[in-house]
Amino acid sequence: MNYEMIRAADQRLNGYVRRTPLLSAPQLDEIAGRRVLIKAENLQHTGSFKFRGGWSALSALGAEARSKGVIAFSSGNHAQGIAMAAAAHEAPATIVMPKDAPQAKIRNTQWLGADIQLYDRDDEKREELGRKLSEEQGLTLIQPYDEPQVIAGQGTCGLEIAKQAKAAGVEVADVLICCGGGGLTSGIALALEAEAPGLKPRPVEPEGFDDVTRSLEAGEIQRNDKSSGSLCDAILTPQPGDITFPIIKRLCGPGIVVTDEEALRAMALVFRHLNMVLEPGGAVAVAAALFHPGESDGKDVIAIASGGNVDADIFARAITEHGDTA
Amino acid sequence: MNYEMIRAADQRLNGYVRRTPLLSAPQLDEIAGRRVLIKAENLQHTGSFKFRGGWSALSALGAEARSKGVIAFSSGNHAQGIAMAAAAHEAPATIVMPKDAPQAKIRNTQWLGADIQLYDRDDEKREELGRKLSEEQGLTLIQPYDEPQVIAGQGTCGLEIAKQAKAAGVEVADVLICCGGGGLTSGIALALEAEAPGLKPRPVEPEGFDDVTRSLEAGEIQRNDKSSGSLCDAILTPQPGDITFPIIKRLCGPGIVVTDEEALRAMALVFRHLNMVLEPGGAVAVAAALFHPGESDGKDVIAIASGGNVDADIFARAITEHGDTA
Repeated sequence: MNYEMIRAADQRLNGYVRRTPLLSAPQLDEIAGRRVLIKAENLQHTGSFKFRGGWSALSALGAEARSKGVIAFSSGNHAQGIAMAAAAHEAPATIVMPKDAPQAKIRNTQWLGADIQLYDRDDEKREELGRKLSEEQGLTLIQPYDEPQVIAGQGTCGLEIAKQAKAAGVEVADVLICCGGGGLTSGIALALEAEAPGLKPRPVEPEGFDDVTRSLEAGEIQRNDKSSGSLCDAILTPQPGDITFPIIKRLCGPGIVVTDEEALRAMALVFRHLNMVLEPGGAVAVAAALFHPGESDGKDVIAIASGGNVDADIFARAITEHGDTA
Repeated sequence: MNYEMIRAADQRLNGYVRRTPLLSAPQLDEIAGRRVLIKAENLQHTGSFKFRGGWSALSALGAEARSKGVIAFSSGNHAQGIAMAAAAHEAPATIVMPKDAPQAKIRNTQWLGADIQLYDRDDEKREELGRKLSEEQGLTLIQPYDEPQVIAGQGTCGLEIAKQAKAAGVEVADVLICCGGGGLTSGIALALEAEAPGLKPRPVEPEGFDDVTRSLEAGEIQRNDKSSGSLCDAILTPQPGDITFPIIKRLCGPGIVVTDEEALRAMALVFRHLNMVLEPGGAVAVAAALFHPGESDGKDVIAIASGGNVDADIFARAITEHGDTA
């Protein structure tokens, strides 16, 4: 896994990926006490950065593997990214999703033409189920994060940040990244190391699912105690990946942990001041920028808004109950 | 009022305006039965296209007029556009707003440093109030639409559409435009006439406030019977402007009229499939694209999402009550 793979993925994505904007609002800057630049991956195709990794992985497959099809396990964003990329590459896609995934994610994945297999997040190990289906049907398993071509795709987001930060006059800043298994974090870290060494990647996680933060503190991989119980469904993973963690350890600053309530408040503020929809797991980096300013230095901070696929009732609750607390 | 003024405004806006993206989602294309390209002006600074006209007008003023200050009347989007542009040009701004304007718009306008004067939409004529304050205090009145430099600013949105449509391979299509007094519609119409004559501007209005549609049918200016009573607060104006209407009459196709409910459904669908927030008045063109496909021809349609400054309760209602009706 290296920087050259990210450059190659960027070539394959060119013309298909959305080059998402880096947005800011003066009201958010005031709350954070510094300029907050938000990389709007919620505007990416399928509503999250996962389209990048999905497209990268599908476009890297040979013709025979594509025609047999792919399989992925995902709470919903990787699912949609793979489903859309597979459809464009004429590859059948099977997606293994937890039963408690947001309805919107399940519906959109189905709409995109994938075959959905539901599992129980607390009882079954999705990795084992995915491997079983993969072996039985000759499908290529595309891991959600511990997979070089997926990391390469997510890293293209880092190439864009390097360019956009430079255009905005930002050479030194923390880059806060919503972190589950670490695919986006490690991909961006590798891209920034090569293209913008003054930008420091910082993983951000929800309370109770801070495996990466604790792993960084311990210097070795730590697991989470539980597998559900946060609104941040997109980034609830058991532990950092075997490929992603060494990269994160080498290149990232300390992790930042935010509460679900802070994620909801960040969603309400982005609704109000940027007219965008974030999902809880896609809002944790913005929440860290707004509500944990003491954990970063410098006059600017960059935060990835990694996705926006949220059910209407959760979003309605965020904006009506958490809109005036900031 | 001419095309050259739009080019000049575009120069003054360069580096300050957001070049907003032209977005699409396959699910929306399916509903409309053709490709729907959405110009996301809800992502513009201050949350609507009005920033363009505000900046254009402020940057065209001489130093003395700037230092005395400006005055504007607005239900909220022109207010915020003027307030932000005035702050950047160090000009004091007084904004006359209706008492029933969305709270979010009033709060944001205040936050941006403007002095707010509230009036009753049914009892007082905002034009007269604006002129009175303007004369008493030596302020330059910046009309919300019937004002050449404002139209020139809004027209820069049309220059971008011409470029973006070409890049998307679209040379012939209707361009559906949320229409109040016609500033955005006439500005875009002039830009497209010069840069993309195959793109046909079409005004879109809410039911009960279809003055432009009826004026086009009659060949002369018609008024609305009422001044309030629609959720589409951003585009409730008494009649087309004396400057805007002749341009609209010369260049636009027939108007399209949508219901408030269709606007709410469009908001729910854009929430679901593009992770963006639209306000009712900013969603009427998307609603026309999705729910009135028989009123346009061709394999593509372009719709302006003109703004997204909506109170949380209205947005929550749109996405929870109108989310599954499409």
